[in-house]
Amino acid sequence: MASMATTLPSKTAFPSHSLSRTFHTHFAPSSFSVSLPSKRKPHSTRLTVSNALIEPDGGKLVNLVVEETQRDSKKREALSLPRIKLSRIDVEWVHVLSEGWASPLRGFMRESEFLQTLHFNSLRLQDGSVVNMSLPIVLAIDDQQKHLIGESTKVALFDSQGNPVAILKDIEIYKHPKEERIARTWGTTAPGLPYVEQAITDAGNWLIGGDLEVIEAIKYHDGLDRFRLSPAELRDEFTRRNADAVFAFQLRNPVHNGHALLMTDTRRRLLEMGYKNPILLLHPLGGFTKADDVPLDWRMRQHEKVLEDGVLDPETTVVSVFPSPMHYAGPTEVQWHAKARINAGANFYIVGRDPAGMSHPIEKRDLYDADHGKKVLSMAPGLERLNILPFRVAAYDKTQGKMAFFDPSRAQDFLFISGTKMRTLAKNKESPPDGFMCPGGWKVLVEYYDSLVPSSSDKVPEAVPA
Amino acid sequence: MASMATTLPSKTAFPSHSLSRTFHTHFAPSSFSVSLPSKRKPHSTRLTVSNALIEPDGGKLVNLVVEETQRDSKKREALSLPRIKLSRIDVEWVHVLSEGWASPLRGFMRESEFLQTLHFNSLRLQDGSVVNMSLPIVLAIDDQQKHLIGESTKVALFDSQGNPVAILKDIEIYKHPKEERIARTWGTTAPGLPYVEQAITDAGNWLIGGDLEVIEAIKYHDGLDRFRLSPAELRDEFTRRNADAVFAFQLRNPVHNGHALLMTDTRRRLLEMGYKNPILLLHPLGGFTKADDVPLDWRMRQHEKVLEDGVLDPETTVVSVFPSPMHYAGPTEVQWHAKARINAGANFYIVGRDPAGMSHPIEKRDLYDADHGKKVLSMAPGLERLNILPFRVAAYDKTQGKMAFFDPSRAQDFLFISGTKMRTLAKNKESPPDGFMCPGGWKVLVEYYDSLVPSSSDKVPEAVPA
Repeated sequence: MASMATTLPSKTAFPSHSLSRTFHTHFAPSSFSVSLPSKRKPHSTRLTVSNALIEPDGGKLVNLVVEETQRDSKKREALSLPRIKLSRIDVEWVHVLSEGWASPLRGFMRESEFLQTLHFNSLRLQDGSVVNMSLPIVLAIDDQQKHLIGESTKVALFDSQGNPVAILKDIEIYKHPKEERIARTWGTTAPGLPYVEQAITDAGNWLIGGDLEVIEAIKYHDGLDRFRLSPAELRDEFTRRNADAVFAFQLRNPVHNGHALLMTDTRRRLLEMGYKNPILLLHPLGGFTKADDVPLDWRMRQHEKVLEDGVLDPETTVVSVFPSPMHYAGPTEVQWHAKARINAGANFYIVGRDPAGMSHPIEKRDLYDADHGKKVLSMAPGLERLNILPFRVAAYDKTQGKMAFFDPSRAQDFLFISGTKMRTLAKNKESPPDGFMCPGGWKVLVEYYDSLVPSSSDKVPEAVPA
Repeated sequence: MASMATTLPSKTAFPSHSLSRTFHTHFAPSSFSVSLPSKRKPHSTRLTVSNALIEPDGGKLVNLVVEETQRDSKKREALSLPRIKLSRIDVEWVHVLSEGWASPLRGFMRESEFLQTLHFNSLRLQDGSVVNMSLPIVLAIDDQQKHLIGESTKVALFDSQGNPVAILKDIEIYKHPKEERIARTWGTTAPGLPYVEQAITDAGNWLIGGDLEVIEAIKYHDGLDRFRLSPAELRDEFTRRNADAVFAFQLRNPVHNGHALLMTDTRRRLLEMGYKNPILLLHPLGGFTKADDVPLDWRMRQHEKVLEDGVLDPETTVVSVFPSPMHYAGPTEVQWHAKARINAGANFYIVGRDPAGMSHPIEKRDLYDADHGKKVLSMAPGLERLNILPFRVAAYDKTQGKMAFFDPSRAQDFLFISGTKMRTLAKNKESPPDGFMCPGGWKVLVEYYDSLVPSSSDKVPEAVPA
């Protein structure tokens, strides 16, 4: 990954922290109104364009990492407390919480937040306002751990190497209703849901909520930490660039030219709306993904090539890693993906077909209706402030030899290349049609699958479900 | 049931319509404030006491029954339209919708309402306000029916006797995601959920939404129609009685003295708060119930005895039947039970242990945490205007020989008599402890179980899960 750091357009897309902190940009007062067709906001059909970033949920971005001066004393305190050992996914959630992606949440959910999340996909705050919160961010413990905690009001969270990560205080321990949690989050209890198998099935029968004091910023030391910008750092960067609109694109797959088309088209639309400087947040998910997804490091190499090849403009694109684990919970999860990006400063969110979806684990169909994600997103409580930009479907236009928006009047001219098809081609070292993906990006994919297959002559005969 | 009509205190509890319409009561301006401990409304901890009834959801009570002058033409129109045959439960939902229990809903849900219900337990209205809606009120059709409807924008709904019930107009047909509907509504997909088996498993793979025009008020001709007061009729009755608070008690079981205790205690508390004339809406559920619940007609006889025996005061009690079918969906369903009662004029709602709950259909445990119902209810969007009154647990106090609020400091003095235990005793013609239920009410229960058991010497050895 060393080569990546040097070739990525890091001066523009990956600012150093000191840089973004010393820049004190001043905004020209450029507020004006444009019309927006917006079915979801019948009471306000006009949008004010301004270059102040969208406010975080709850009004203030949460930061749960303790001051450096407190670090040693917190570490000592942690050593004196009952211990809970965190899994990799638990650490990812501590990371998410610590940087305020889940603002205004200040720690693992207590039962009141857990129940509101399961039933309403939202939390009511003290002032009566509502923020979106669709995924339970919870920490499970077993009977033995519960017993060890006893009457303590605090526990210490340790990583798998035995390092203290955080203190959880004012704790509340409550039952972990696994079946109900799974049913209400995924809309199915079928065996084979990747997050469930990884993080729920064998987890303890109790959940422990409380407020987090994180001892130091979470790092993974995998060569990618510098791309894991926090919401505060992203906001600084958008401000430094004088962004008057930020549009987020969540992805967990390699970028092809269809994605690129809709990102550049979105920018064009935002300029038409009257924005002067819309910035794209290209935001690959960096936490837990299922085994047949392309791993983060390979995806980052592929994204790098896409920028290098000029498919996306580095001047108006920020590439960063979203540290959340993936649930594959479709319409429920897409709300989380959108909500977290509000906290990072995005006021526009691009949503495509079947976001956060996957095949049904035991039936021959997609788990979710492909349109439910964007419909649910457009109706979700707490996301009224976010402008949802539904994908137009892009496909390979054989007459033009490139990815283009699908035109149903000449359907026969278009070729749909699914993620499954793409993976099968790359595994077999076959080439996709010219113009499907930039050659550098495709090469990374082929290399990735090559690194998996023992003999390069092996063919993958069957498509693997996405 | 003929005897019931004469012995029930119908002059006060069951007004004739003409009576309630000719009464024009005038309210004394008696507004004043009292403190209420209300964790769920941190922004308004004081409650204004006034004798105007709570506003229906959406501001106006929906009435979907067409004017009498239109009846014949609508009937003729129905005969010309594609037909959908309704099940008994479908008719119950038409009934519920037609009288505005689900206000502001004007018919079976379209997909937008269905998705909001599944994901958020609430609907956002055109003006941006939110009303609670936790159960999908939907109508399923199969492929063949969908084909027959073709391009028609209207369909006619017929009952099982071939009578036209309603016209559904501006229809929308969308997929019926059964597994997801079940998982998100019940928090389980285990086989054996009574409503699922009765109304979903074999239902069609499509849902049809639209606006209802109901040809005439739904009647069942079972001797109980006169007790099925609509929300408008209940509101008239509460107004006639000069109610300044209405507290609803939903039930689907016989009333024992523990129930009576908390109803009378609630009235006492409301008087203490400063209300002058709190009226109890004793509101047994009258739609579909599972096979081992006591049927409505027997329950109504039992409730009659409870009023006759003076356990509840007819002057301050209105007994009426809530026409909804039962889902047994615990915390999800209790919101529907509460929301519908707002539409009937209730501003206080009594909630007990494990409302709308049942045993897990395949595991040896309750399906829901007994406390989740009241917690979820107190946090539910759209129910902020409703005052939730959690049950204090009543049990049989052996030292007093009567039902009393449980005192944990002398737990050994109390006997908990579950619904299961009660049914087993009644089936075996054994008597419960004196003071558990009024003798007249108990006799009705014994008669009911006697009517089921072929030989009166049969004993029921095992408790049947509630």
